[in-house]
Amino acid sequence: MLQLLEMMQSSSGPLSILGGRKLILGSASPRRKELLEGLGLPFTVDSENTFDEAFSPGEDHREVPIHMSRGKSLGFHRPLEDDEILLTADTMVLCGNEIMGKPHGRADAIRMLCVLSGRDHQVISAITLRDSSGKIQSASDTAHVWFKNLSRAEIEYYVDNYRPFDKAGAYGIQEWIGYVGIHRIDGSFFTIMGLPVHLVWEELEKFSK
Amino acid sequence: MLQLLEMMQSSSGPLSILGGRKLILGSASPRRKELLEGLGLPFTVDSENTFDEAFSPGEDHREVPIHMSRGKSLGFHRPLEDDEILLTADTMVLCGNEIMGKPHGRADAIRMLCVLSGRDHQVISAITLRDSSGKIQSASDTAHVWFKNLSRAEIEYYVDNYRPFDKAGAYGIQEWIGYVGIHRIDGSFFTIMGLPVHLVWEELEKFSK
Repeated sequence: MLQLLEMMQSSSGPLSILGGRKLILGSASPRRKELLEGLGLPFTVDSENTFDEAFSPGEDHREVPIHMSRGKSLGFHRPLEDDEILLTADTMVLCGNEIMGKPHGRADAIRMLCVLSGRDHQVISAITLRDSSGKIQSASDTAHVWFKNLSRAEIEYYVDNYRPFDKAGAYGIQEWIGYVGIHRIDGSFFTIMGLPVHLVWEELEKFSK
Repeated sequence: MLQLLEMMQSSSGPLSILGGRKLILGSASPRRKELLEGLGLPFTVDSENTFDEAFSPGEDHREVPIHMSRGKSLGFHRPLEDDEILLTADTMVLCGNEIMGKPHGRADAIRMLCVLSGRDHQVISAITLRDSSGKIQSASDTAHVWFKNLSRAEIEYYVDNYRPFDKAGAYGIQEWIGYVGIHRIDGSFFTIMGLPVHLVWEELEKFSK
């Protein structure tokens, strides 16, 4: 019986990093759900939250995603059970000194893409893990992105056909504009998509120790 | 009538870069098909080819993908029609001075991933466009990839569950090992997947002029 148990454990191999605990993704983003699925770990989604996503403009920009992911974690709508780990995340686009959130409609999306065109910007994604014991652990990852010079026709075609109004910086790298317009990134593709999965893995390994 | 035609052309916007010609993808790779679909252009797949994929070991490594994609283009199984553009591609993994092709079975895949673990390597993808007039145009793109230190358990789990035997270097960045193990790339994610789509777009724009 013990031998069978050992065999079962070894066959799940690296996927045993949760140590039998239940992972909850505290995010309503379908992209984050899809990315987390790529790690092969079982999890459930529960995005109910009381956190107010405002941030103080005085804050160091690079710290904002960490603060936001912690805020989302602490604002989870109910206390965690003993066997639960909550994962929350936040992503920010930073171009020069402008923090780009989700665009306010078509004109704002076009404006954002005009600003991003022909230059580099940064995408910062942070994650927070928390359990019922009060243990809370955060980490963030930064990636650089280079857009070619986008034509007005390319920008309008993208905005009208993909309606990127739920995306910080008004683009998804995994969509048409990312195929046509992004020739280089330095960092993790998944960080740019909104969830630094390598960091989720690394932090889960530490968290479960 | 002319006005209607103009409206139709303008509504397809940047997608008119083929200038009414038919694009053929000369590759049997489902990943390349999927990536090309992301550009939103109509195309058909025809991978029938008489090209022998051997290369002379004396060649400069970085030139191999260009030569291979040209060879695949010239080895297309039939003459091109006047309104056709043929797209072929080749991808190579270069680690130190070792060219990594597709692994020969499980042991070779594990060996390759052990070599790639904890260091950087390069992925070079090249494309060739050709039409019936004899016009032929090639370009290549290089990306750097950094793997973390992969554990033996992670490597074996990946190889046994994903069977990356059809992939140069024995991995797919879009699969589990890419999620868990790749914390940084410098270049294009799609180049690493096997088709530098930004380059396909750019070269098609030039080709059709």
